[in-house]
Amino acid sequence: MEFKKKELANGLTVIGEVNKSAKSAAVGFFVKTGARDETKQINGASHFLEHMLFKGTEKLSAFQVNEAFDRTGAQFNAFTSEEMTVFYAAVLPEYLVEVMGLWIELMRPALRDEDFKLEKNVIKEEIAMYKDQPSFDVIDRCRSLHFDSHSCGNSVLGSEESIDKLTANQMKSYFTNRYAPNNMVLACDGNFDWEQICSLAESSCSQWQKQTAERDLQDYPGSKKKTRLEKANLVREHICLFSAGISAQDDSRFAALLLATIVGDDVGSRFFWELVDKALAEVATMQFAGMDGTGAFCSYIRCGSENAAKVLDTVNGIFQSLCRTGITDDELRTAKNKILSALVIKNELPMGRLLDLGLNWTYLQKYRTLGEDIKAIKDVTVEDIHSLIKQFKPGDFTQFSIGPALQK
Amino acid sequence: MEFKKKELANGLTVIGEVNKSAKSAAVGFFVKTGARDETKQINGASHFLEHMLFKGTEKLSAFQVNEAFDRTGAQFNAFTSEEMTVFYAAVLPEYLVEVMGLWIELMRPALRDEDFKLEKNVIKEEIAMYKDQPSFDVIDRCRSLHFDSHSCGNSVLGSEESIDKLTANQMKSYFTNRYAPNNMVLACDGNFDWEQICSLAESSCSQWQKQTAERDLQDYPGSKKKTRLEKANLVREHICLFSAGISAQDDSRFAALLLATIVGDDVGSRFFWELVDKALAEVATMQFAGMDGTGAFCSYIRCGSENAAKVLDTVNGIFQSLCRTGITDDELRTAKNKILSALVIKNELPMGRLLDLGLNWTYLQKYRTLGEDIKAIKDVTVEDIHSLIKQFKPGDFTQFSIGPALQK
Repeated sequence: MEFKKKELANGLTVIGEVNKSAKSAAVGFFVKTGARDETKQINGASHFLEHMLFKGTEKLSAFQVNEAFDRTGAQFNAFTSEEMTVFYAAVLPEYLVEVMGLWIELMRPALRDEDFKLEKNVIKEEIAMYKDQPSFDVIDRCRSLHFDSHSCGNSVLGSEESIDKLTANQMKSYFTNRYAPNNMVLACDGNFDWEQICSLAESSCSQWQKQTAERDLQDYPGSKKKTRLEKANLVREHICLFSAGISAQDDSRFAALLLATIVGDDVGSRFFWELVDKALAEVATMQFAGMDGTGAFCSYIRCGSENAAKVLDTVNGIFQSLCRTGITDDELRTAKNKILSALVIKNELPMGRLLDLGLNWTYLQKYRTLGEDIKAIKDVTVEDIHSLIKQFKPGDFTQFSIGPALQK
Repeated sequence: MEFKKKELANGLTVIGEVNKSAKSAAVGFFVKTGARDETKQINGASHFLEHMLFKGTEKLSAFQVNEAFDRTGAQFNAFTSEEMTVFYAAVLPEYLVEVMGLWIELMRPALRDEDFKLEKNVIKEEIAMYKDQPSFDVIDRCRSLHFDSHSCGNSVLGSEESIDKLTANQMKSYFTNRYAPNNMVLACDGNFDWEQICSLAESSCSQWQKQTAERDLQDYPGSKKKTRLEKANLVREHICLFSAGISAQDDSRFAALLLATIVGDDVGSRFFWELVDKALAEVATMQFAGMDGTGAFCSYIRCGSENAAKVLDTVNGIFQSLCRTGITDDELRTAKNKILSALVIKNELPMGRLLDLGLNWTYLQKYRTLGEDIKAIKDVTVEDIHSLIKQFKPGDFTQFSIGPALQK
């Protein structure tokens, strides 16, 4: 395993972790842009752009893009979050250069007006589809309530209204600023030739223009507001809780991950034994979301609405007991094993490793070996978790619920 | 990569592929039993047993089983198909022996009457849930129509009626016959110590009793019947087609896999370009299912019911053109790249490799390296595919459709 790094004159960072014994290779672009980098006026632009990149370039039609991926046999995907837009693919080593060339080509899309118009409808259908899923909708609304006026509360998909109003020129200007080479990382992992990918990056990306791409990094503790939305067609109660957390850069991020696992892993956690195993709720999970300069703990619970009050009592009880008596050695050991095995298994595959490699670089501007992450997780103590609980008070949460009309 | 094999006196086969450079290890039991091994009276028993195994043993309660998995941090799962019941887990190497010991313990479940009664309701809810999903239901019904009286047409879940009538004694006697050591394979993959797992298998499984566990291996060409079911609440047409294919043991199985990819991969296939890209259908895929002694090609298409006739014309056109003019070199090359990259990426992880290792052994009673499978795929010629098309006539299919009431 050998780490390599190169920065082009225009600021594009190229990184690679070479593993000649891997049977596959993976490549991806990590664009540091997402919903939080949008104004309310252009909310949804990052996700819209992710779609537009597959519509083709000056050289390639959408049909040809499709065919080109097909020829390499690539397993490829893209996603947009509050913070990132990521494009990645895994292939047999002999196709790595071809599929990397294709991603490079796509990073400078044609952004044709007629595609923009057509794609608007696709995006609006996607928004409508997710609005219909209360388990998704409640998290989106709770994030927005929690972050209040902070842009980390922006919805990734945007709203029907913001997408309707978005103009092709707004999208193009957002693209120019955010897909600047100095705001992107090109990463490779697995079995590939570093010199070859460097010279391809050099010859194909050097003419991309540097821009000023900034991000508001203010921390935000959360609004702690509480609200409930009634929807006539629902039979279940969907509850989302957000509380303050630490950033993706914070050294305590592994402690935060362990805490969320102890409280709300889908099996074997406190939520599991107190809510799911006791049949008070069907789903009850907590996740830690470390973000750029800020962070949050996010819980999601689904239950019969007749149980909602009892569920919230139980949740409050769990949080109070955490503050009062903390966690046990056993809980920490189990959580470490879960996180370590998931981490190791994910990173064993070049495609999984690529994501950690690229995200680590984006957040930390440094290379971390898998071994360093494993050690950091193993080193977390019960006291680390206790001081995290004291500092962040998971019981001090913003709450959004969606459920049926209540019986008077 | 080193292959190891041992057979206990009671017929339990233990196999392992040791890869000391892997970061994780995986272990699984491959029980050669599934819906096809059931009579109509006990249809659903295999899947029911899969559930019951997690309810505990003489030593462990369901709660303790849960906790025991949790402690190891295992990523674990189980599935039941027409042919197999598989239990597997991946862990950090230091937990392999512990999680293997747990699976061994679970393979001799308590099968408590009170758990059996409670679990009946869970299974019946699962049946009801899948019946509500026409994309699942249509495939189940079409398989049954295609295989007619052959037991490969049995539904994995069983019916509400068969589950209702199933007695605890029937389940126990099915268990005794089918979970016999000579009808199971215990497999390990990744970073583990072969001697250690052998001695654990020897000490913990040797008292399991050998039984006569047989399977009807008759080939079956399919009924070619055609039928349609109306459901008032549906708005889309769901179409499933089954045609005869080759068995999982047949040397042409890779050619069959390539043919299904060319015709019906979810992107870039003939179905994709003729049906999905032209917006005639939303989904149109074909898969090859090589089974024990028989096999089938299975297509699934979802479209507006006003388009159903045109979709079937197009499908028939695709099959006719396959018979008349065959496939191109380009199509075969692209399909090979797709299958090779999916195969290599799956097998790069001990958990993925374990599944191929165990299934290959169950079907072929021999070890195949990944390299042998890669070579076999690369060696398939256009002529191999053409002779497969001639022999199996994909246009000669059984058809089941589910859709809304037709306008008169």
